[in-house]
Amino acid sequence: MRYEEFTIEGRNAVIEAFRSGRTIDKVFILDGCQDGPVRTIVREAKKAGSLISYVSKERLDNMSETGKHQGVIAYAAAYEYAEVEDILRAAEEKGEPPFLFILDEIEDPHNLGAIIRTANLCGAHGVIIPKRRAAGLTATVVKASAGALNYTPVAKVTNIAATIEELKKQGIWFVCGDMGGELMYNLNLTGAIGLVIGNEGSGVSRLVREKCDMTASIPMKGDIDSLNASVAAGVLAFEIVRQRMG
Amino acid sequence: MRYEEFTIEGRNAVIEAFRSGRTIDKVFILDGCQDGPVRTIVREAKKAGSLISYVSKERLDNMSETGKHQGVIAYAAAYEYAEVEDILRAAEEKGEPPFLFILDEIEDPHNLGAIIRTANLCGAHGVIIPKRRAAGLTATVVKASAGALNYTPVAKVTNIAATIEELKKQGIWFVCGDMGGELMYNLNLTGAIGLVIGNEGSGVSRLVREKCDMTASIPMKGDIDSLNASVAAGVLAFEIVRQRMG
Repeated sequence: MRYEEFTIEGRNAVIEAFRSGRTIDKVFILDGCQDGPVRTIVREAKKAGSLISYVSKERLDNMSETGKHQGVIAYAAAYEYAEVEDILRAAEEKGEPPFLFILDEIEDPHNLGAIIRTANLCGAHGVIIPKRRAAGLTATVVKASAGALNYTPVAKVTNIAATIEELKKQGIWFVCGDMGGELMYNLNLTGAIGLVIGNEGSGVSRLVREKCDMTASIPMKGDIDSLNASVAAGVLAFEIVRQRMG
Repeated sequence: MRYEEFTIEGRNAVIEAFRSGRTIDKVFILDGCQDGPVRTIVREAKKAGSLISYVSKERLDNMSETGKHQGVIAYAAAYEYAEVEDILRAAEEKGEPPFLFILDEIEDPHNLGAIIRTANLCGAHGVIIPKRRAAGLTATVVKASAGALNYTPVAKVTNIAATIEELKKQGIWFVCGDMGGELMYNLNLTGAIGLVIGNEGSGVSRLVREKCDMTASIPMKGDIDSLNASVAAGVLAFEIVRQRMG
């Protein structure tokens, strides 16, 4: 299942994929490999902004579906990314105040897919994810999104904090979900809003949290630390829906 | 990852596991295999109420971690199951009206784990799952529950509809999450309550839905059919929390 439709293996296949303009999220290269074709791949990857990981032969062998990776495996995006402007335009076309999700380093593709699915169903206009340290739009994400990727644009940005800063100038308020904030029911979450969801393990990063206008907390009664990230996103998103309906 | 710590392979190992009283969720047996040890395993499995699946050699080979399954692989529960009475007792000890989750055939272990995690954090006293056609407490579920299984009891019952019927006599009201019901904000979800969540694909089964006192719907604005089951469970559970706080 994992990435199967979108794994590209072998030097020529990966070079061709770059040259055809296909979006490549990540390239895995055999550590120490320095020959001509591999140098071409590294150059193309840098040009395209793809992440490069140097890994052991054992790791590549484990990832390989064909057994013929020749020291190179690439993960191609299953969907094309949108631009942040596309998301704002979608809101404008519907005559609604913008409602968008910002995912600060969601790593699990099941969570990313489930959150895109939630974004679609709660009426959000799009999802913004960071280029680095986050899951891209792989086959697993596409499947977990249950079709939502056909409707809800996903944009990838280099710097989440800078993007928030930019969007605040356009009148969007940002609320991040985190512990130790104000109980979500007590915040005003109507109007143009961006919901910021943090990493599964470490939550919203300090830099991003400081850019947000509000921190919203879900009431917690239990013994453990936190909800699953996609569940927390859903609970916060539908509190926004509830307030917008009211 | 899949079940790795809790897969038991080989005839003697599986027989021993049954005899030690370990909870075995499921036994896979090579189709056509009828010798003495296999007959013993079938007998023990029936006594213990474990599910038995007869499968091809190829399937067993694929499932096997050791390559030495001898025609038998068992999945052991990573946690011991509780009884429904334990859940009611937990509520009583806290001096709270019972709040429990009933999962009608949740199949994905990530969803099951995430829902148990949600149950813990929203203050529910326990989770009830069916014996058949559902994920059991496997290693994946334990991991996805993020420790919640150490606190939140999970009971396994033969017949969900009969269990609901029984619990209704004890004053618990049941609400199922489904499309086409009343908007969740308009229902009274306070007091002793059981939240019923349906299967990922087919939702709550007709028989179970008919036993419920209410059907609650989440407001949906999007293009696709439904939320991820664990997200839907989270949104409904925290609407119950909101009403109980109010």
